[in-house]
Amino acid sequence: MSAKDTNRLKARLARGFIDRGPAELASTRQMVDTIRRTYELWGFEALETPFVEYTDALGKFLPDQDRPNEGVFSFQDDDEQWLSLRYDLTAPLARYAAENWDRIAKPFRTYRFGPVFRNEKPGPGRFRQFLQFDADTVGAASVLADAEMCMMAADTLEALGIPRGDYVIKVNNRKILDGLMEAIGLGGEENAGKRLIVLRAIDKLDRLGVEGVKLLLGPGRKDESGDFTKGAGLDEGQIRPLVFLLETTSLQRDVLGFLQFPLAGRFTESPIFSDGMQELLKIEEIIRLSGYGPDRIRIDPSVVRGLEYYTGPVYEAELTFEVKDEDGKPIRFGSVGGGGRYDGLVARFRGEAAPATGFSIGVSRLQAALQALGKGAAEPPGPVVVLVMDKERTADYLALARTLREAGIAAEIYLGSSGMNAQMKYADRRRAPVAVIQGSNEKEAGEVTLKDLVLGKEMSKKIEDRAAWTEERPGQVTVKQADLVATVQEMLARYS
Amino acid sequence: MSAKDTNRLKARLARGFIDRGPAELASTRQMVDTIRRTYELWGFEALETPFVEYTDALGKFLPDQDRPNEGVFSFQDDDEQWLSLRYDLTAPLARYAAENWDRIAKPFRTYRFGPVFRNEKPGPGRFRQFLQFDADTVGAASVLADAEMCMMAADTLEALGIPRGDYVIKVNNRKILDGLMEAIGLGGEENAGKRLIVLRAIDKLDRLGVEGVKLLLGPGRKDESGDFTKGAGLDEGQIRPLVFLLETTSLQRDVLGFLQFPLAGRFTESPIFSDGMQELLKIEEIIRLSGYGPDRIRIDPSVVRGLEYYTGPVYEAELTFEVKDEDGKPIRFGSVGGGGRYDGLVARFRGEAAPATGFSIGVSRLQAALQALGKGAAEPPGPVVVLVMDKERTADYLALARTLREAGIAAEIYLGSSGMNAQMKYADRRRAPVAVIQGSNEKEAGEVTLKDLVLGKEMSKKIEDRAAWTEERPGQVTVKQADLVATVQEMLARYS
Repeated sequence: MSAKDTNRLKARLARGFIDRGPAELASTRQMVDTIRRTYELWGFEALETPFVEYTDALGKFLPDQDRPNEGVFSFQDDDEQWLSLRYDLTAPLARYAAENWDRIAKPFRTYRFGPVFRNEKPGPGRFRQFLQFDADTVGAASVLADAEMCMMAADTLEALGIPRGDYVIKVNNRKILDGLMEAIGLGGEENAGKRLIVLRAIDKLDRLGVEGVKLLLGPGRKDESGDFTKGAGLDEGQIRPLVFLLETTSLQRDVLGFLQFPLAGRFTESPIFSDGMQELLKIEEIIRLSGYGPDRIRIDPSVVRGLEYYTGPVYEAELTFEVKDEDGKPIRFGSVGGGGRYDGLVARFRGEAAPATGFSIGVSRLQAALQALGKGAAEPPGPVVVLVMDKERTADYLALARTLREAGIAAEIYLGSSGMNAQMKYADRRRAPVAVIQGSNEKEAGEVTLKDLVLGKEMSKKIEDRAAWTEERPGQVTVKQADLVATVQEMLARYS
Repeated sequence: MSAKDTNRLKARLARGFIDRGPAELASTRQMVDTIRRTYELWGFEALETPFVEYTDALGKFLPDQDRPNEGVFSFQDDDEQWLSLRYDLTAPLARYAAENWDRIAKPFRTYRFGPVFRNEKPGPGRFRQFLQFDADTVGAASVLADAEMCMMAADTLEALGIPRGDYVIKVNNRKILDGLMEAIGLGGEENAGKRLIVLRAIDKLDRLGVEGVKLLLGPGRKDESGDFTKGAGLDEGQIRPLVFLLETTSLQRDVLGFLQFPLAGRFTESPIFSDGMQELLKIEEIIRLSGYGPDRIRIDPSVVRGLEYYTGPVYEAELTFEVKDEDGKPIRFGSVGGGGRYDGLVARFRGEAAPATGFSIGVSRLQAALQALGKGAAEPPGPVVVLVMDKERTADYLALARTLREAGIAAEIYLGSSGMNAQMKYADRRRAPVAVIQGSNEKEAGEVTLKDLVLGKEMSKKIEDRAAWTEERPGQVTVKQADLVATVQEMLARYS
């Protein structure tokens, strides 16, 4: 590397961030439009909060803080106040609802969409900026609001094209775990830290399996890289009921049965445990009466969600189908969204009760899943490219492009300075469906030549013989200039 | 204020940032969709770069740096590298184009949309996060690319509903000013600072008028608040030709006349000046041949744009109509976008030529203008609200809402715990077009009562007499439950 090279400014994406191109953006737009339509059908209205908030207003609620900044990008304003990039769409909503409490019609149903930022160690498929789409209801204490979230989540996944049976919305109630922890001696302020470790250990069930979680509940766990994570230090008697929760697979229609399971007897005394059970039963009743079967929404006591602030029902949207990765190995997408009730979050600002519940979709992950299902948007075609055969006649080419645009057909003229071959290569790389050519002969005859590049590409795979190719000129046609639009429309119609 | 109040966490937006509600978001979406469609018609394709970039990759090109951070929000990563929130959409594109130079089909036409961030002193209508919509062509040295930007800008404003005559795209060439500055002794590296002051002084013409700019070119200027801004310190002989530029009103079709204006004689010797003139002439030729008259696009030598990095053609989209503000005073929106050629920006990374030109729309300002023109999106109506008359019958109300949703009608049930009056008030605040009521009588009769809340509100203004009101019940109708959807659709159709 020469000195000149090393001195030159390096063009590189910041670590953990990505650029996104037209195909991916079209897919996101299509997804987001569908989610928005579904949410609006349910009476939710759009809201947008800024990307930057006062650090104290956001609070610190992120799991897995492996960074000094506790997972958040923060910086100081010139008046010394700390600002942070939002790390989710819930904390800013809590700020908004509290700040505008008297102005909003409550219960307040709202949706928000956009990027959030995490100051975390980036990894494969793990970025520091990613998209979320949230719906929240603020000011409704009834579990009806939670049930509605679950039903809307199911509707949304189906609207996005995920067949029934390929997803499930799992519901639980944080109070069940809280009651259970109280009963095994983890109640009180002094055990808050331990409870958080338990919570986050259980939230890792998907990734670590029951044995991994058990280690995190007990002495701790060494991961593949040799790093040791300290456990909650619980004893065998404390761990057993927690593990029972995890191993209780879906209870289907028999939630009541859960109340009588062998270990639960001693926990039903706990008011918080039985509150949780009552709420779960109520949610299940609403859901069933509304016609959502356990193939769509079901109670699952292993769902806890990793965020500390949930206070009641928690729910998670999971994709259950498998796809093959590039090596043919089956992969599951698992959780693509989740949420729960967070009655304390708005209350922090208000000093009085402010119930709220919300659901967040991990847009990027869901988009990958839709792509795997073949439900993503197709790569958008490029514009028709008008070749520039003679620079002196640029005005003619501009006019051809303009004529196409006026008919609603995306069209551009070649803006570079290269010759015919390079221009055809350019049209190809632009995914142009059609190239428009008007040399001096065509101009004199009042004609244009149109090349159907899609057909041309297909044919070129079949016609091996160069001579035959040149003679047949597949997909190429010369027409009167007045027929330009009609002929291009015909060509485009073949592939739409 | 009690101690409890002062200790409580305060819910407040960060300084200089705003929340946006459904009406404004719907307007933005409608606008952005129109701009996107227009840009795609011209062959531009979507790209998204992240919000965070390495500080050195963005560079420092902001005018008016009244902040220590030079107008940018910056923070250090845990590997000590400096990161910044993007302050525009051009600098990240330059990074993208350089980083992906060999992968992109050139000339590369791209558009990008999203918020940008400025670490500036916020003021009325001046926010630290705002929306831009940019289009750029990278890899085309020809002024054809610049002319295309101007024509596309005109098309875009018309597509947004701004009538011809209410806007103008002004074009100039930075080389004219550069040549002129060279001729008055401001050439060379040692005068770079002075040239920047001149540039920014001229860019303030709109706000300060010719006299204000003159002061900034000379000794300096004291503003209304008494703050003094140091001037470029030019003498009378240097200032005169610069002011001539500003006072040359639009040259319309007679650009050539410009070449012969009294003061210009001595500048036409400057190769850079005459380069600029040649390019302007070429742009005008392309634009006229393409059918855009001076009522849409015209040469204006007073346009310079405040950013240092422009190297050739610069252009500005200006709204020319006046609206009245709340006090009846006429206001003009002025510039709603602009751009120019920045051949050095990508080259910084590449060490070789990388021509580029781009146009940026100030979405928020343009949106305000469209609103003033009555071309903004209408405030979206709220959902149909199903009142909860009897909590035991929640399932019935859920079913009514579901029936409406399945017919594509946005509907929700009331989720709170208040009575009939509060629910009607809620429906009103939600801008619900229709309220659905099913008391026990209606239930027994298999009926529902529908209140047309729009008509109700209109009638309530007319019918003063409370008794007549109660008797007539305007806009209220009781129908068979089977006719729910049809009747609601009829009511909605009245106002759409």
